[in-house]
Amino acid sequence: MEIKPTLHTSLSPSLLNLYDASNSIVVIIDVLRATSTIATALHNGAKCVIPVNSVSRCIELGNQISAITAGERDGKIAEGLFYGNSPFEYPREFIEGQTLVLTTTNGTKLLQQALEKGAKEIITGSFPNFSAVCNYLIARKKNVILGCAAWKDRLNIEDTLFAGAVVDKIKDHFSINCDSSNMAEMLFQTAKNDLYSFMKNKNASHYHRLSGYGLEKDIRFCLTYDISNVLPEYEDGKLILR
Amino acid sequence: MEIKPTLHTSLSPSLLNLYDASNSIVVIIDVLRATSTIATALHNGAKCVIPVNSVSRCIELGNQISAITAGERDGKIAEGLFYGNSPFEYPREFIEGQTLVLTTTNGTKLLQQALEKGAKEIITGSFPNFSAVCNYLIARKKNVILGCAAWKDRLNIEDTLFAGAVVDKIKDHFSINCDSSNMAEMLFQTAKNDLYSFMKNKNASHYHRLSGYGLEKDIRFCLTYDISNVLPEYEDGKLILR
Repeated sequence: MEIKPTLHTSLSPSLLNLYDASNSIVVIIDVLRATSTIATALHNGAKCVIPVNSVSRCIELGNQISAITAGERDGKIAEGLFYGNSPFEYPREFIEGQTLVLTTTNGTKLLQQALEKGAKEIITGSFPNFSAVCNYLIARKKNVILGCAAWKDRLNIEDTLFAGAVVDKIKDHFSINCDSSNMAEMLFQTAKNDLYSFMKNKNASHYHRLSGYGLEKDIRFCLTYDISNVLPEYEDGKLILR
Repeated sequence: MEIKPTLHTSLSPSLLNLYDASNSIVVIIDVLRATSTIATALHNGAKCVIPVNSVSRCIELGNQISAITAGERDGKIAEGLFYGNSPFEYPREFIEGQTLVLTTTNGTKLLQQALEKGAKEIITGSFPNFSAVCNYLIARKKNVILGCAAWKDRLNIEDTLFAGAVVDKIKDHFSINCDSSNMAEMLFQTAKNDLYSFMKNKNASHYHRLSGYGLEKDIRFCLTYDISNVLPEYEDGKLILR
């Protein structure tokens, strides 16, 4: 009998240390909007995306390497930066050939944790690059941790839904003894016919946080499958196309 | 407009510190089987249940106060103790008037954390005392944290389902801005027509752990509403009937 690799889901950065990141592919998931925007920028030709954990580091690095600096705090472009977290800010005519230095809170924190835990293979996942992620995980035949960035360590619906969508798609290829994975998949089954309405109707806290800033268009984009279907991989401090 | 108290769900002990336990009623949830057994022992007349975090402490205290000592490790009664975690071990003819010293891993850990975080009001919840818990939370009109004991900090389906059942029942009385609560409720909606089959079919890891020990009967009991419908409250190191 073939021995399948394992699949676990960490629904919050606070839970990542329960799993063996050093021996797994870690998928960083920050659906609204960091990993959706990362996939989109790379899909549209960005040379690389450098995730950093503070606005000051973003400014500093942007000056050093003449890169585009981006990041938001409380839904507004952070002071000293020039662009925000929306995937619509990074069309090909703007981003092609450029380096994007992006500061996010939840996604970057999770990535740092994965590195500290010895993760050697880190990719980013979002609905816009759903199939690229799933196909890669199936092909690699290695243990997988789906790592949700969540919101200040609190679980959120959108990252859980994405994890559930991945589980639904790839589960036959993995051994899954993980209630978080199973629950995420069940949630996805309930939501899959209309992710947007589900987010809206189920009172997803992030939906309300963002839609309050008038970003329904971003949310719809970030819930759309395969419109930026590339595979960002972390290597030497940068996210690049694999 | 009436200001409603808040309700949050902490799906793992690792997440409890995200919520303000000092200003909330904390409901300790360990469906399989600690909090089900606690409700049942008290319902059947136990004087009190003293939760302790180690087998050695359980033996020591049992000797000091001539109490019944109980606890399992890996599904077997722990060496030096006399009874296990099954609610069926505590019928009225055995437990009435007695003190039960119970060592559990996940539930006791969560309770200690709640105390360290300054929780002043702690109760225990399980399907066997579902209505007692819900009615109490509605009547008290205070902030609530539903705290799942989980399994070695990993989320589990059964505690999440119980949290979801409580949310479903009491949500109109609370302000809920918590995706964990909403997701737990959605999971419960999917499962509520047959909790037992849901646990079995959805590959709940704990179902398989316990059913491997031949404990299907315990699982059915622990998923039954209101058969031990009392309210255990923590006071001075003991769980007593409120």
